[in-house]
Amino acid sequence: MHTYRSHTCAALTKANVGETVRLSGWVHRVRDHGGILFIDLRDHYGTTQVLCDPDSAAFAAVEKVRSEWCIRIDGEVKARDESLVNPKLPTGEIEVFVRDIEVLGAAKELPLMVFGEQEYPEETRLRYRYLDLRREVMQKNMTLRSDVVSSMRKRMWDKGFREYQTPIITASSPEGARDFLVPSRLHPGKFYALPQAPQQFKQLLMVSGFDKYFQIAPCFRDEDPRADRSPTDFYQLDMEMSFVTQQDVFDTISPVLAGVFEEFGEGKKVDDPASWPQISYKDSALWYGTDKPDLRNPIKMQVVSEHFAGSGFAIFAKLLEQEGTEIRAIPAPKGGSRKFCDRMNAFAQKEGLPGMGYIFWREANGEMEAAGPLAKNIGPERTEAIRQQLGLGVGDAAFFLGGKPKQFQTVAGKARTVIGDELGLTDQNRFAFAWIVDFPIYEQDPETGKLDFEHNPFSMPQGGMEALEGNPLDVRGFQYDLACNGYELVSGAIRNHKPEIMFKAFELAGYGKEEVIKRFGGMVNAFQYGAPPHGGCAAGIDRIVMLLADEQNIREVILFPMNQRAEDLMMGAPGEPTPEQLMELNLRVIPQE
Amino acid sequence: MHTYRSHTCAALTKANVGETVRLSGWVHRVRDHGGILFIDLRDHYGTTQVLCDPDSAAFAAVEKVRSEWCIRIDGEVKARDESLVNPKLPTGEIEVFVRDIEVLGAAKELPLMVFGEQEYPEETRLRYRYLDLRREVMQKNMTLRSDVVSSMRKRMWDKGFREYQTPIITASSPEGARDFLVPSRLHPGKFYALPQAPQQFKQLLMVSGFDKYFQIAPCFRDEDPRADRSPTDFYQLDMEMSFVTQQDVFDTISPVLAGVFEEFGEGKKVDDPASWPQISYKDSALWYGTDKPDLRNPIKMQVVSEHFAGSGFAIFAKLLEQEGTEIRAIPAPKGGSRKFCDRMNAFAQKEGLPGMGYIFWREANGEMEAAGPLAKNIGPERTEAIRQQLGLGVGDAAFFLGGKPKQFQTVAGKARTVIGDELGLTDQNRFAFAWIVDFPIYEQDPETGKLDFEHNPFSMPQGGMEALEGNPLDVRGFQYDLACNGYELVSGAIRNHKPEIMFKAFELAGYGKEEVIKRFGGMVNAFQYGAPPHGGCAAGIDRIVMLLADEQNIREVILFPMNQRAEDLMMGAPGEPTPEQLMELNLRVIPQE
Repeated sequence: MHTYRSHTCAALTKANVGETVRLSGWVHRVRDHGGILFIDLRDHYGTTQVLCDPDSAAFAAVEKVRSEWCIRIDGEVKARDESLVNPKLPTGEIEVFVRDIEVLGAAKELPLMVFGEQEYPEETRLRYRYLDLRREVMQKNMTLRSDVVSSMRKRMWDKGFREYQTPIITASSPEGARDFLVPSRLHPGKFYALPQAPQQFKQLLMVSGFDKYFQIAPCFRDEDPRADRSPTDFYQLDMEMSFVTQQDVFDTISPVLAGVFEEFGEGKKVDDPASWPQISYKDSALWYGTDKPDLRNPIKMQVVSEHFAGSGFAIFAKLLEQEGTEIRAIPAPKGGSRKFCDRMNAFAQKEGLPGMGYIFWREANGEMEAAGPLAKNIGPERTEAIRQQLGLGVGDAAFFLGGKPKQFQTVAGKARTVIGDELGLTDQNRFAFAWIVDFPIYEQDPETGKLDFEHNPFSMPQGGMEALEGNPLDVRGFQYDLACNGYELVSGAIRNHKPEIMFKAFELAGYGKEEVIKRFGGMVNAFQYGAPPHGGCAAGIDRIVMLLADEQNIREVILFPMNQRAEDLMMGAPGEPTPEQLMELNLRVIPQE
Repeated sequence: MHTYRSHTCAALTKANVGETVRLSGWVHRVRDHGGILFIDLRDHYGTTQVLCDPDSAAFAAVEKVRSEWCIRIDGEVKARDESLVNPKLPTGEIEVFVRDIEVLGAAKELPLMVFGEQEYPEETRLRYRYLDLRREVMQKNMTLRSDVVSSMRKRMWDKGFREYQTPIITASSPEGARDFLVPSRLHPGKFYALPQAPQQFKQLLMVSGFDKYFQIAPCFRDEDPRADRSPTDFYQLDMEMSFVTQQDVFDTISPVLAGVFEEFGEGKKVDDPASWPQISYKDSALWYGTDKPDLRNPIKMQVVSEHFAGSGFAIFAKLLEQEGTEIRAIPAPKGGSRKFCDRMNAFAQKEGLPGMGYIFWREANGEMEAAGPLAKNIGPERTEAIRQQLGLGVGDAAFFLGGKPKQFQTVAGKARTVIGDELGLTDQNRFAFAWIVDFPIYEQDPETGKLDFEHNPFSMPQGGMEALEGNPLDVRGFQYDLACNGYELVSGAIRNHKPEIMFKAFELAGYGKEEVIKRFGGMVNAFQYGAPPHGGCAAGIDRIVMLLADEQNIREVILFPMNQRAEDLMMGAPGEPTPEQLMELNLRVIPQE
């Protein structure tokens, strides 16, 4: 027989009754039933009930084992009594009578129970991650992650892509976030950097003629800790293709992602990629108050300025006299109660706005009546026009926010989410996707008036060089995100592969030619040797797995994550370097006061 | 029609004759045949001949394009004249008459030609890697690499393994080589390290109950540059499994690798994994002079001390009076000429030895005669005994080396290789594998007498605790390498999962319990909570691809390698940090004198 096991702990069925078997695994639970010891023996694959009575030669040894000891047992497979069969367990028809036992690895007193669903502080879980990972939900999350990544790979290969590995120790490339630096020993005073994304390398691959690239790529950003992101490294499904338009990228990646969500979504509805809407950045901000809308929520905001201009509601009427202001409505079907409306008003105040005006429609004396202070102020005609524009009726409500859209639209988006959730409008059993397109290339600092890139600086402006010669704030890029259930899952662009357009684009943002060459020299030089048009995108793997696992915290889907202070207390990272290490690197740590 | 292409440059055949098509690609070569311009248009998939005569409206524009410009053309597919069909090219039956052309990306004067097989200095190739990578052989090497990695993944999944990603920013873990350090911004004065290998994490995964792990894992070692290794990062097929013996690991990984070599070996013979010999470290040193023997070479060295002890060849006879000395013979079938023997003797001298004695057998007057000075010195009887032991005859030779094996065995191994190559004994059309087993756990510093680990310190000693209580130099580990054609492809071990045996093993090498906990705390702590027996290995991917691509330099199979000074001149790595970056990291560079 094999040294450790003849079967896994998920393998034995009635067909094995009478056989002598060998199992290895962990003691999930020990129970003493009238002197007979029952052990749920667990491995990666499942659990088998083994038992030992005082007549067995192994009894004394079995008596000593505790939870999470790793043991090997030999024993005989017997059928369980009809009444004791556990139909939920693949091995539920049998049990194994222990004849021999070997302790493969004993365990000290446990800081964390594997059995049961007790909650522990995150610090404890991360410090004893090897115990935490033994828990059923963690085994499930991690195998899910592995399966998702594998499925992505298969789907990309099926689409004619090859995976290429790009360098991890490379040059600093200021793309927005902060680089992790790696001091060079051979070149004192110089540093490598870990890539924030393989952006430049994937574009170089296109210039090299590889046509279709993808990579499950580790990305590194030295960011300040936040609950929903890893403070060090994270993974992207990164892809790039040559000789393509924006629509080609959509047609390529959409079915890959839809396929993954269908495969692992546990029956939740996944919209057909052909039906994923393409919403302009501008419309998305207007309709949903965000560039990552949750389309499971059917609420779509609308501009209702005309109904308030010159109306009796002085606050809005006055507001609208200022340039760049708007009144927007959030329709709230079935939200037509004063209690709900007041709660939402309070929500807006908590978010830092003066409040949200509202109207709700109710039945009074067999007739529809518009209620709420706003309705009185603007009068029945305007109220009715609003109702008709929003398509609402008895039992519904509408909320109103006014001002410069940039100042209220984020709160409006949040309110939309809360309204959708509270009124049960948001379909929890669906993954709803939308491409957000036509991002502006530039944004303007409201104080200095200085232009800067809105996303990354590598996107092709729609209209090319000509567009850059007009008003920069009007220039849209071939730049897109994919939103799903309120998260940004994918971000990408058709790249600017023409050096002269690139230099012009940077010039508008205040970067001279020399600066551009210094920062992005590798890529800019390459573009002068026959660059193909190309584009692509990157999908956040941690976030996709989070959605599929229905987890709120990214650390639930990463094997060995850092804590929120970017520490790994289990491994002792970061740690003190030795003086020799610092000397070799030619570095001195500046003493802290 | 699509904006850029209706077909790739490998797609058009006779079936498309008469169609109007659109192609995009690079100008591989332009030829002017009597006023008609012929362009080989190349993309990732192939080449299509396109042509333009002066009657075409596009002629003036086509006249301007140069090598490596990226262009888009529209044109009509025509059948080539029977006499001009190129059967080697998938598109060799047709050509495309250009009607319209668009320059997608022009090219400056080229520092490096893509067409043809001109050689360039490595610096030029790496600085313009995007051009270098367009060359046919590089496209082939990189797609081969991608395909090999994909095949490995498929094969590992088929064996029931899942791929799990372990952290890249983690703790320093002194495993032999030098770590790359990453300064922590949030914890001034502390550093992360990039993993030399995911050794500890994969063992932690076993403690976490994941049973079967693999990863195409990036590994980082700050090593001094060498021709055959990347000075920064490299990739391994890393795997680990629980509840296994050494043989289980062999049975798992051998068919995976054999499969890869069969799939991509271009018809070279791959030995059946069941027939791969298991050779002890000791025997390998004796027979082949190395622990990574090239078994395509049939030469096996032998100990022939007895024939020289007390013989008339005073040098060897005297040598053998010292303890620990040996005489070994390298049989050289078909090497029986004075010219060859003298050349080999000169080789040994060049390698720093006094020379290699030899005997060769020839026919003289119809009889076999042993020639060479050695034969005279030891006389006919001893000479004949040697011949019989080695199984040699007329036309063959044997070379002899003596002394303490450690002092000559490396040269003996090299001589064996040269002899095999020069005499044509080494089968160039074969991949010959051997497991090297029973590595000693410890080696002794010949000067200080201090013990240290021979490989890494994580292997289970054969015989466990008991063995460690005997002579440490006699202790063998469950530790193994796989050699192929003279390279070490794989290295692995059954791990020491018992804390008490681990502490004892470290103690013998001079590391106290505290030191062990400090260095490998993550893993050692984990072993106290029910660790399963486990083992695995890691296979060097760069080297496997090198062997399959028949390349001698590792940089031929890496997309964007560093040069031998660990620089990437294309991207400018390493580079100067900004003062702000250093300040954020709380570091100061020590000025160089």
